[in-house]
Amino acid sequence: MTNEEIHQIAQRLRIDSIRAAAAASSGHPTSSMSAADLMAVLMVRHLRYDYSSPENPNNDHLIFSKGHASPLVYAMFRAADAITDGDLLSFRQFGSKFEGHPTPILPWVDVATGSLGQGMPIATGVALCARALDRLPYRVFTLCGDSEMAEGSIWEAVEHAGVNGLDNLVTIVDVNRLGQRGETMHGWNLDSYAKRAEAGGWHTIEIDGHDIAEIDRAFTEAEATTGRPTMIVARTIKGYGASETANVEGKHGQPLKDPEKAIHELGDVAWTKVDVAKPEGTGTPHRFEADASIPLPAYELGGDKVPTRLAFGQGLAALMRRRGDVVAIDGEVGNSTHTEEVLKHTPERFFEAYIAEQMMIATAVGFQVRGWTPFAATFAAFHSRSYDFVRMAVISQAKLCLNGSHAGVSIGEDGPSQMALEDLAEFRALGSSVVLYPSDPNQTVKLVEAMADLRSTRSGLPTLYGPDEEFKIGGSRVVRESDDDQVTLIGAGVTLHEALKAADTLAGDGVNVRVIDLYSVKPVDVETLSAASSATGGRFVVVEDHWPEGGIGEAVISALADTDERPRVVKLAVTHVPGSGKMAELLHDCGIDADAIVTAARRLVELGPQIGRAAAASAG
Amino acid sequence: MTNEEIHQIAQRLRIDSIRAAAAASSGHPTSSMSAADLMAVLMVRHLRYDYSSPENPNNDHLIFSKGHASPLVYAMFRAADAITDGDLLSFRQFGSKFEGHPTPILPWVDVATGSLGQGMPIATGVALCARALDRLPYRVFTLCGDSEMAEGSIWEAVEHAGVNGLDNLVTIVDVNRLGQRGETMHGWNLDSYAKRAEAGGWHTIEIDGHDIAEIDRAFTEAEATTGRPTMIVARTIKGYGASETANVEGKHGQPLKDPEKAIHELGDVAWTKVDVAKPEGTGTPHRFEADASIPLPAYELGGDKVPTRLAFGQGLAALMRRRGDVVAIDGEVGNSTHTEEVLKHTPERFFEAYIAEQMMIATAVGFQVRGWTPFAATFAAFHSRSYDFVRMAVISQAKLCLNGSHAGVSIGEDGPSQMALEDLAEFRALGSSVVLYPSDPNQTVKLVEAMADLRSTRSGLPTLYGPDEEFKIGGSRVVRESDDDQVTLIGAGVTLHEALKAADTLAGDGVNVRVIDLYSVKPVDVETLSAASSATGGRFVVVEDHWPEGGIGEAVISALADTDERPRVVKLAVTHVPGSGKMAELLHDCGIDADAIVTAARRLVELGPQIGRAAAASAG
Repeated sequence: MTNEEIHQIAQRLRIDSIRAAAAASSGHPTSSMSAADLMAVLMVRHLRYDYSSPENPNNDHLIFSKGHASPLVYAMFRAADAITDGDLLSFRQFGSKFEGHPTPILPWVDVATGSLGQGMPIATGVALCARALDRLPYRVFTLCGDSEMAEGSIWEAVEHAGVNGLDNLVTIVDVNRLGQRGETMHGWNLDSYAKRAEAGGWHTIEIDGHDIAEIDRAFTEAEATTGRPTMIVARTIKGYGASETANVEGKHGQPLKDPEKAIHELGDVAWTKVDVAKPEGTGTPHRFEADASIPLPAYELGGDKVPTRLAFGQGLAALMRRRGDVVAIDGEVGNSTHTEEVLKHTPERFFEAYIAEQMMIATAVGFQVRGWTPFAATFAAFHSRSYDFVRMAVISQAKLCLNGSHAGVSIGEDGPSQMALEDLAEFRALGSSVVLYPSDPNQTVKLVEAMADLRSTRSGLPTLYGPDEEFKIGGSRVVRESDDDQVTLIGAGVTLHEALKAADTLAGDGVNVRVIDLYSVKPVDVETLSAASSATGGRFVVVEDHWPEGGIGEAVISALADTDERPRVVKLAVTHVPGSGKMAELLHDCGIDADAIVTAARRLVELGPQIGRAAAASAG
Repeated sequence: MTNEEIHQIAQRLRIDSIRAAAAASSGHPTSSMSAADLMAVLMVRHLRYDYSSPENPNNDHLIFSKGHASPLVYAMFRAADAITDGDLLSFRQFGSKFEGHPTPILPWVDVATGSLGQGMPIATGVALCARALDRLPYRVFTLCGDSEMAEGSIWEAVEHAGVNGLDNLVTIVDVNRLGQRGETMHGWNLDSYAKRAEAGGWHTIEIDGHDIAEIDRAFTEAEATTGRPTMIVARTIKGYGASETANVEGKHGQPLKDPEKAIHELGDVAWTKVDVAKPEGTGTPHRFEADASIPLPAYELGGDKVPTRLAFGQGLAALMRRRGDVVAIDGEVGNSTHTEEVLKHTPERFFEAYIAEQMMIATAVGFQVRGWTPFAATFAAFHSRSYDFVRMAVISQAKLCLNGSHAGVSIGEDGPSQMALEDLAEFRALGSSVVLYPSDPNQTVKLVEAMADLRSTRSGLPTLYGPDEEFKIGGSRVVRESDDDQVTLIGAGVTLHEALKAADTLAGDGVNVRVIDLYSVKPVDVETLSAASSATGGRFVVVEDHWPEGGIGEAVISALADTDERPRVVKLAVTHVPGSGKMAELLHDCGIDADAIVTAARRLVELGPQIGRAAAASAG
């Protein structure tokens, strides 16, 4: 195609962006129009992608970090003849896969974007995957808006791509000057972006983003650049090509008022199919050696105290020897989370994210785009730094295994900044999440195999379970019971051990209690809880090293809220910002130690049965 | 003091850091030792701070972004004779104010740090406050570790400080090369930090961080620099001064094995009081004009539909005219959250954070350090980007008012990336938070006055309340009731309006129901819920535009879990990742519309009374 023909393709991308938004009566056509020339050149001359085979491992990847330019994404699919015009015009209709922001419901979309500053870090993860895991020559292109360059996560990615010398990564910044409500921080100062990227080790090229020849030269130069990623910083005009919108403020996120006029100004260009080049390579992704016969670690019952975080690291190390698809990423605390255990045998599959938790999750999301199974670990408190990335990963249907160590006040002297007291609520409140919280090293190892999200404790805890016991997601363990239990105590992690101490004290008073290890916080084992409620007169004490909201207590109460026999539940949880101290001091101070459990259980015994036995009592 | 005397002060700071960690048997002495010379020069020659009057508005500010160097923080307080040696040695003991990481429990500490990458952005907020709000010449110093320079939040702050030309801000980077588990991304490559800061508009100075004269010249040069913030990038040695620790790997976060030997190597320097210069200025903070007689906006009952987000903006605009201490910050969506309403009359108190939510919260935290009352707003979904900052703000006892707009699936066509479905769980699960969720514009305005966290809805909703009604935190409103209500429906925001529609339908069937507006999600109005449970046979339907976990449903169930009369609660919530569509389509698809409420209520009616009336029924 000639440059003029490519210009016509770009005009048609603009027309289709306008048409999609007009059909939806909403959307972001102006943000699409600024980048149409950039994307037209890319798809006609540089991208290698087989739209009929999106799973081809040799395909390049194109991730729209500016996900709101979804009309352009879909117009490109239409240009490649991957979708019909009817598909395009179903944009934003209920039930359509062509949503307001792109999601992987569509086979050509790697990840959901729309929360700005995420697509570019994830693209960096995919580019790292090409080099370090797949070992294939595919390239990764990502289109950023200029507004999102204000997100720190972008600069975490710039650092990581630079340090890793990812010359298979090309970031295109669509500097159209106008954000949602006015000019961006830097307007058309292209240098402000380029200089920072250069400081991070990137090759940069500043261009006119509407000049087909310049764009083409930039992509060619990017391809020829080795040892460094390339950032193409393009000066563009928002709403380019239509007098109603070109460089006009207040036009963000709105369909055009007069789409017909704009389409006419754009030359009424008819649709033409773009034959996107297919990947030349036919390589297969690298596979790492594995040996499924490697045993999982086993811990002696009643032996030395082993922190669940150490069991996590040792379990993960064994799992990575057993399975070649599993990889580990850590936020520069691998000697605390114990992911460093994997360095002994599988160092090629360990990735250091440094203190950049957003980039850690982005890397994991990027890896799973290509089918790898990533585990990412940091202190549970610091997963809050990347919560928006995990939120978006849920929309991406991404398979992530996250481990948060140092849960709750039990960490002791380091103080509240290091204590996760909201992590259970955070992760429970995400659509398809699973939340696990082991109390024993053998259990931890078993759950590592099954895990999606694992919470681990800093301190050593006694081993409760033999190495052959199985633990399924959605299960629980009744760790103590008798025929005349009067109360059910429920805990996980450190509070389970406190519950067991409380059970000993209560037994000394002649009060038998049931103790449940609720290691699967979500999904929760409703059946076991229900049976315990019936058996113990509907008297529950739930103890958690967490704020009272959104954690284990509410999981238990919710599970039985719409049933005939709703237990009376005393919830013991952290209710003030803790300070520093030893674990036992803090558990006591927060009212979540054995003493507090004993007091709560005694009160319930005095109150008498709350269900089931109540009827029996009043009948008797 | 001579340079040699300052060196001796630095040695004593090291000795006291070692002693504090030795007394605690934990802590971070080596991270303190690398920065001791930098801090000794600062406090002897450049800082202007009255330790006897920490509330003096002319004091400089010193924020340890590397909060784990708390032994050095406390050693400095000791050097200034602000604390006793016994205080210093109570480090990390239970009940001591000298916690593992510094918190504002101590009067000389502005904010809690310990989650890396936060102190520097907050310092930027304080420096902006000096210029734009207080209008005082105090300066802000912040000490960063090199590991934390990997956090994107640091670079958000670099951008903001650069663009705002904050020459009253000095960032000192303690490049001791070693992170927690080995070398940092850039080791001793000082340029890697300096070049990026220069690209962001900073003046930078690279020095040997143990050379007293060089350090002194750098601070002097920083003070003389106008129009730009200064970053002093200092090459240092972790654990400097003791052979056990100097530049030795594996010594992070550990007390010394032989503290006596190290103290001897450091010259057994005795404690000497440092007379820190007091601020020269006696200015008072600028105060903005206000007029308490400006009325709050009022909306006509039954008038045009007004989105609660618009009422938020208009309410905030009025509040800022009434109160000079209130300021607004927005994440570049002010035309959606409607904070732009404040531009009409109080543009000097509006701050644009661009798409940098972490910096938005850091700015707010920085402003409240100096006594201002900040409101920060973005889409509720994007508050998840700065969750760790809000988590730490709780530990800082910071007063923040956050508004999240565009709550839930009710936003419609933009799709799930823009929908807040986890925000209630997020904010409920934070120690001292208050969570509000208005359903009406007049109510919104009243709550803006009282608010800490406000959730608002994108779409217009009918006006339910007259402008004179009062709404208190911890309250609720029974919006419909009769003498023979059979079920209680509970909602907030859009779901309250669906509940009212459902109530109409049910009334048509002869089923009266009570409807509660649970606008105060935390704290929750237990009394009204309890009364409703008794009056409606313990039958509740709770409807929320949120995931099932951690939101309104669990707030209601938890509130009555440890009472005699525990209602049966049907929880209607979003249970799958929604797509795009119109509000009504999505509410229906997610089973949280009036139809779903009617179905749930009918089922409860058929089940019969669950408490109270049940006894009556079986007695009768």
